[in-house]
Amino acid sequence: MTEKRQLNIEVESMHYQKLLIAIDDDDTISSKRAFNYACTLAKAYQIPLGIVSILETGDLNIYQSLSPNVVEGRREEIAADLDAYVQKAKEFGVEDVTPILNEGNPGHVIVEEVIPSFQPDLVICGSKTKPSKHLIGTHASYLAKYAPCSVTVVR
Amino acid sequence: MTEKRQLNIEVESMHYQKLLIAIDDDDTISSKRAFNYACTLAKAYQIPLGIVSILETGDLNIYQSLSPNVVEGRREEIAADLDAYVQKAKEFGVEDVTPILNEGNPGHVIVEEVIPSFQPDLVICGSKTKPSKHLIGTHASYLAKYAPCSVTVVR
Repeated sequence: MTEKRQLNIEVESMHYQKLLIAIDDDDTISSKRAFNYACTLAKAYQIPLGIVSILETGDLNIYQSLSPNVVEGRREEIAADLDAYVQKAKEFGVEDVTPILNEGNPGHVIVEEVIPSFQPDLVICGSKTKPSKHLIGTHASYLAKYAPCSVTVVR
Repeated sequence: MTEKRQLNIEVESMHYQKLLIAIDDDDTISSKRAFNYACTLAKAYQIPLGIVSILETGDLNIYQSLSPNVVEGRREEIAADLDAYVQKAKEFGVEDVTPILNEGNPGHVIVEEVIPSFQPDLVICGSKTKPSKHLIGTHASYLAKYAPCSVTVVR
């Protein structure tokens, strides 16, 4: 027979104060849901929302990475998309929106540079739709493991 | 000059419909925050909350696992704690609370058995406070990687 144990817990309301949404242009389905979720939370609690997009320099092959035009073109594309995301968030009703553009390996850059600088207490990211043991949202997984704050991986 | 690109996104409100909180008795700090967060969401949106606790059979060494008394004692302890969590959630204002008790490897059991059966669209779990590259919430990390639904790792 189990007796009634006293647990040292008193439930308290808990809300996040500052959100960061990581945009991944290559993953439209879960990325879109993640963006919806981030905007919903930021609007409901009237908290600041950072939108970060990373130019994945590892995406470009060596030939391309040697061509400044290719990199510059991709950077401009990402910057334009980022502007569009900021605009959409504001139209939805999020008042405090900060665009953050960086480059390198997304997981590393977000954990090592973006989070320490922007200081969100929750990072939201998509995850390449349904996972299998062979197809994992690498960046999402890295964030969930190494971010110093809470992380929501949206599927 | 970046030109205004048209992004095919229209922001929509997004809320989760059914939550699962994974309780870890060994990790009181982030586990407590995770429990607070799960109760806050479940109450705010008036959605069902499942509370799952797993008897980690791998925790017990071979000598102990051969003793039915040790395993049974631990199982009763966990069942009593689970009851207490359910009670606390209800007192906080969550109406629909389901206790789920299972045993084995927490990550595997939750992904392979609990989620398919309970069908939450968001799993919330703690993560052994601040991570380092050598001390990771193994179960949290596993859930974030392999759960078929969204996962929030709380720190």
